Amino acid sequence: MSHQFEKVALLGLGLIGSSLAHAMRRGNLAGTITGHAKSAETRKTALRLGLVDEVFETPGEAVRDADLVVLCVPIGVCRELVQTIAKDLKKGAILTDVGSVKGAVVRDLEPLIPEGVHFIPAHPIAGTEYSGPEAGFAELFDGRWCILTPLYGTDEAALERLKNFWQACGSSIEIMTPEHHDLVLAITSHVPHLIAYNIVGTASDLERVTKSEVVKFSAAGFRDFTRIAASDPVMWRDIFLNNKDAVLEMLGRFSEDISSLQKAIRWGDGDTLLELFTRTREIRRGIIEAGQETDLPDFGRAPASDIETAGKKE
Amino acid sequence: MSHQFEKVALLGLGLIGSSLAHAMRRGNLAGTITGHAKSAETRKTALRLGLVDEVFETPGEAVRDADLVVLCVPIGVCRELVQTIAKDLKKGAILTDVGSVKGAVVRDLEPLIPEGVHFIPAHPIAGTEYSGPEAGFAELFDGRWCILTPLYGTDEAALERLKNFWQACGSSIEIMTPEHHDLVLAITSHVPHLIAYNIVGTASDLERVTKSEVVKFSAAGFRDFTRIAASDPVMWRDIFLNNKDAVLEMLGRFSEDISSLQKAIRWGDGDTLLELFTRTREIRRGIIEAGQETDLPDFGRAPASDIETAGKKE
Repeated sequence: MSHQFEKVALLGLGLIGSSLAHAMRRGNLAGTITGHAKSAETRKTALRLGLVDEVFETPGEAVRDADLVVLCVPIGVCRELVQTIAKDLKKGAILTDVGSVKGAVVRDLEPLIPEGVHFIPAHPIAGTEYSGPEAGFAELFDGRWCILTPLYGTDEAALERLKNFWQACGSSIEIMTPEHHDLVLAITSHVPHLIAYNIVGTASDLERVTKSEVVKFSAAGFRDFTRIAASDPVMWRDIFLNNKDAVLEMLGRFSEDISSLQKAIRWGDGDTLLELFTRTREIRRGIIEAGQETDLPDFGRAPASDIETAGKKE
Repeated sequence: MSHQFEKVALLGLGLIGSSLAHAMRRGNLAGTITGHAKSAETRKTALRLGLVDEVFETPGEAVRDADLVVLCVPIGVCRELVQTIAKDLKKGAILTDVGSVKGAVVRDLEPLIPEGVHFIPAHPIAGTEYSGPEAGFAELFDGRWCILTPLYGTDEAALERLKNFWQACGSSIEIMTPEHHDLVLAITSHVPHLIAYNIVGTASDLERVTKSEVVKFSAAGFRDFTRIAASDPVMWRDIFLNNKDAVLEMLGRFSEDISSLQKAIRWGDGDTLLELFTRTREIRRGIIEAGQETDLPDFGRAPASDIETAGKKE
């Protein structure tokens, strides 16, 4: 079987970069995988784990002769990175990214792309709360969506190759405009993360309830928010700075709705509460039916007695 | 081995009632278990599953001669239930509940308790998003906290018996005042649930993003909120109506904090965002160290490829 790409360069070797490496190894998708990471420690780990065949201190060296270049770094550093590598990109190469915001990425990168290089923005909807080269695993993208936001005039053959690549990594493909992507992700991802970060912050700043009480009784609901609020801080800062308009729009609606609920609680309006609490169950059922979630209770968490054991594993 | 109680009556046979039955069977804690549920269907199921030895259409019959009576119903119906059973309670019996609000329960029930009956409010911090008599399992309380909020003058021997009972069901015991309980739970449970219900509602009311898009791309963070927002609607309506003051206080703080974040996003203040996002990781570590959560990525969810299989099981 021939590879999909002779040489793939991964710029950034965190959760997504390392998972892509595993997925490419699993599917034998690349002849050679080269990598670059800013940190020497990460580069060493990537070699040790066999994520990449060669690792380079400068991104320019990593992308030389690569047929596919994947930016796996926080959105905030994409621009500088592409400025650095532009002259080293091979003619005919595909340049793509994995960022959670697409409008700003297109705005920042498009002017920098050399003639003859195919720039196709992408966003795999997959992740965990862990970061770094050791967090990756081959199955991360299996059964998940990867959204591509091609620009006007994108080469059809190049788009087809990138679609095949993500499908071989386990994903299903959806095509949309960068603007619509940013709106969809604002409500399915960005605002939920903001809210989770926010309530964990609120809880840790109380005086009448201690931090140790919050930790102790977290199983009542709060702990689900703490997982989300344990996601990579730099990546998330960049997401909010770069998807400002859509996030503020969705946050505005969230706040309006919470004000109505607040009023319903203050006035003892049980019907309004019951109506909402009943309606929200439907969405959950849809997600389970769509195969995006298990229907085991409590996310399939093991009973508490097994959790300690599980936590101590590895 | 002798039983802890000769006869235990469970009023209400939903998730908590049925889990208590399983836990009592596991530990051989009760000589006889009697039960009552309003729905004939639930009573039938409880008998079929062997949750109870006898089941009664009226709660009065179920509590006759019981040494321990546990109210496992939504908070909103506790008062009426205790009015109904008061005359049937045995002298020396312990009456307890499992409600998520304690101040209102004490206020409503204390005046109704007959002389010689020991009323000790309790709240096991355990649950899943599923309801009904088939949702219960013996391990639900293992490694979880059960908060007792005894009133002034509570009989020490009765308190000791109830502590032993919950410990035998797998729980650790914490004692606090009803008021402090309600404040702690407002932040660890009630406000997180309100926020989850709210954002799922917001997402389903959008025009520019369709419901099917929300479902499709939910894995990006949103689906975690939908699990919480799938919890029992009547139970949660009653919680908010009965813990109004503490919920409104905590919600007020949450809203203040979210306004600051909103401003930080609007003005591009990355430092404020990064500071919060870094700080919240600590709380998560505390919860894992306290054994209240697994540290497997993504709650130890199976890779997406296995989810469909898991979903189809049973």
